[in-house]
Amino acid sequence: MSAHSPIEYRDANAKVRAVFDDIKRTRQVEEVNNFWKYLAHDAATLQRTWESVKEVMAPGTLDARTKEMIYLAVSVTNGCAYCIASHGAAARKAGMTEEMFGELMAIVGMANETNRLANGYRVPIDDAFER
Amino acid sequence: MSAHSPIEYRDANAKVRAVFDDIKRTRQVEEVNNFWKYLAHDAATLQRTWESVKEVMAPGTLDARTKEMIYLAVSVTNGCAYCIASHGAAARKAGMTEEMFGELMAIVGMANETNRLANGYRVPIDDAFER
Amino acid sequence: MSAHSPIEYRDANAKVRAVFDDIKRTRQVEEVNNFWKYLAHDAATLQRTWESVKEVMAPGTLDARTKEMIYLAVSVTNGCAYCIASHGAAARKAGMTEEMFGELMAIVGMANETNRLANGYRVPIDDAFER
Amino acid sequence: MSAHSPIEYRDANAKVRAVFDDIKRTRQVEEVNNFWKYLAHDAATLQRTWESVKEVMAPGTLDARTKEMIYLAVSVTNGCAYCIASHGAAARKAGMTEEMFGELMAIVGMANETNRLANGYRVPIDDAFER
Amino acid sequence: MSAHSPIEYRDANAKVRAVFDDIKRTRQVEEVNNFWKYLAHDAATLQRTWESVKEVMAPGTLDARTKEMIYLAVSVTNGCAYCIASHGAAARKAGMTEEMFGELMAIVGMANETNRLANGYRVPIDDAFER
Amino acid sequence: MSAHSPIEYRDANAKVRAVFDDIKRTRQVEEVNNFWKYLAHDAATLQRTWESVKEVMAPGTLDARTKEMIYLAVSVTNGCAYCIASHGAAARKAGMTEEMFGELMAIVGMANETNRLANGYRVPIDDAFER
Repeated sequence: MSAHSPIEYRDANAKVRAVFDDIKRTRQVEEVNNFWKYLAHDAATLQRTWESVKEVMAPGTLDARTKEMIYLAVSVTNGCAYCIASHGAAARKAGMTEEMFGELMAIVGMANETNRLANGYRVPIDDAFER
Repeated sequence: MSAHSPIEYRDANAKVRAVFDDIKRTRQVEEVNNFWKYLAHDAATLQRTWESVKEVMAPGTLDARTKEMIYLAVSVTNGCAYCIASHGAAARKAGMTEEMFGELMAIVGMANETNRLANGYRVPIDDAFER
Repeated sequence: MSAHSPIEYRDANAKVRAVFDDIKRTRQVEEVNNFWKYLAHDAATLQRTWESVKEVMAPGTLDARTKEMIYLAVSVTNGCAYCIASHGAAARKAGMTEEMFGELMAIVGMANETNRLANGYRVPIDDAFER
Repeated sequence: MSAHSPIEYRDANAKVRAVFDDIKRTRQVEEVNNFWKYLAHDAATLQRTWESVKEVMAPGTLDARTKEMIYLAVSVTNGCAYCIASHGAAARKAGMTEEMFGELMAIVGMANETNRLANGYRVPIDDAFER
Repeated sequence: MSAHSPIEYRDANAKVRAVFDDIKRTRQVEEVNNFWKYLAHDAATLQRTWESVKEVMAPGTLDARTKEMIYLAVSVTNGCAYCIASHGAAARKAGMTEEMFGELMAIVGMANETNRLANGYRVPIDDAFER
Repeated sequence: MSAHSPIEYRDANAKVRAVFDDIKRTRQVEEVNNFWKYLAHDAATLQRTWESVKEVMAPGTLDARTKEMIYLAVSVTNGCAYCIASHGAAARKAGMTEEMFGELMAIVGMANETNRLANGYRVPIDDAFER
């Protein structure tokens, strides 16, 4: 089979179900997103990715909202449509207001612009940045 | 001449000097970074870029530290060595601790990974994200 | 006309038909993919691209399956939806199993993550890698 | 301090040393690469990244050489200088000959070209690729 | 609300209307594109982006057609579907023929290929390019 | 051997020498650039790439200067340091003035910015662009 279809809980094996259960419990949702249902085609990658995301996105020195906004900024830069939709929703759920989204997008746009200006003008790194 | 050299204040025209003065005043620094000295080869782009960066990076709903961290996340994703150095320094100046930097990098890495997993598994956007 | 439509064999000129014929013969297919039907708007690019792909993708020291999997890894990294679909199909036709696809995707994800970790931590190249 | 320096074994804490020891044991090397010495600034990311890389790069359905070549193809596409050097070395150690490297590079170049041709001509995905 | 909808003129505030009016006047169109209707969710970004685009895309030493073709080349490289469609249309309106489009696409494809060949072979910059 | 060194004319085989000779003749230079000396490790890729570049970059409907500027715009977007240096030099040799370079860079920066604004706001393509 060339393309994939989502693996639903009822059709999943024990290993996949255990990950789905942990996602639902951790995020307090009734259903996992398509991302996990597709990754379920490879139980090892599903489990490793979920464990990593759970560890990385848990509130730490940075709060959950800031973390989701950084995730969204990367996804917008890479042009990943699925990730923009899913992490846009997650960031809003974690408290990102429309005003914050506007500021985030302005920075992402500006950084993508000045990254290329620095490339094209071949700007050498200031000694001051190296300490 | 094929490559550029930095334009120092003493060699700059009035328009460039006015931008350099505003950068120094706004950021309370004694010297502008190489980025601006190279952009000075095109006074119109220098002025427009500085006005835009000043507007976008001023504290708003998001604080200065969060803004610099988003800028850094984009620069790391794009692999812009100059911007990683300059915005890394700026983020630290704005209060980013090493622990925050570690969390930022973990998210940037993870987002770049899952962006490709979503691409490769061709995951369709969940209806829930569209409202 | 601003956007393109596919050029079908019956509407193609002699130069385009010759390329289409060679694609069908080489790949033993009855119909060329949309990619070639769109490129047919520029016969020179169609011919050059096909000749190059034919040369590069012919089995060499690397077998056809490995070659298609490398093509797919690049396409997933770049987020090219068309290429992910077409080279995913080609890789499967050349023998890529679902287990191999899973391993491929795990590597692509991990490489995209560690590429950014190396960028962000500004890791200098080890002397050992230089000889 | 704004930029990082490598953390050597003698200066590392117990958690970092345990990871370094496992890398040396698994890869049968006497010294870990700079990548790990810089990641050591964040022991959690060091450990998680190493565990993931170890799992993903272990020989599976795909052999070690093929896996390293896929890693290299992604790194070349992203332009990560460190990763090109380190995974180029790793792929050679795993058996990639110069002839294989040449074929790999030809595919990476071609894929990056045709990815953009597909983008620019806005080629719709063939029904045949969808099943 | 998580996803956006376009803001139409009748629903826009005074600041947004002023930008829409200026776009219509400058471009002599009766309706602004979706891009501007979505940016209108953030009036500051809408205004700044429009002022910048207007300044940058005004005929200068380079004519309007060349400028739009450069914009299109970047958009194709980044794989931005919206921008490929909108700047493809704008370039054609500014005089880009199908033959020119074909030549543009051939260059964009070739540049994306050789950029990776230069990366992968780790080619050092010739002294001659540094003057 | 892990990394490459340039292959000089005196050490090259007949196939490589023939390509070097054609490059020198076509471009009227006394020495080929490092790019070609490194590609010479794979004579097939050297020859194919040169033939393609020669065909694509020959003056057509677009003049040589415009072609080199498009090449440069892509290279700046991708952040390929070698290509920015080499095609910057080539564009200047073909007549690009510093003023043109400034305009080019302004467009490249702006396109990279608005590409991300379109991504992040998830702007749907206007019917008008589809004809």
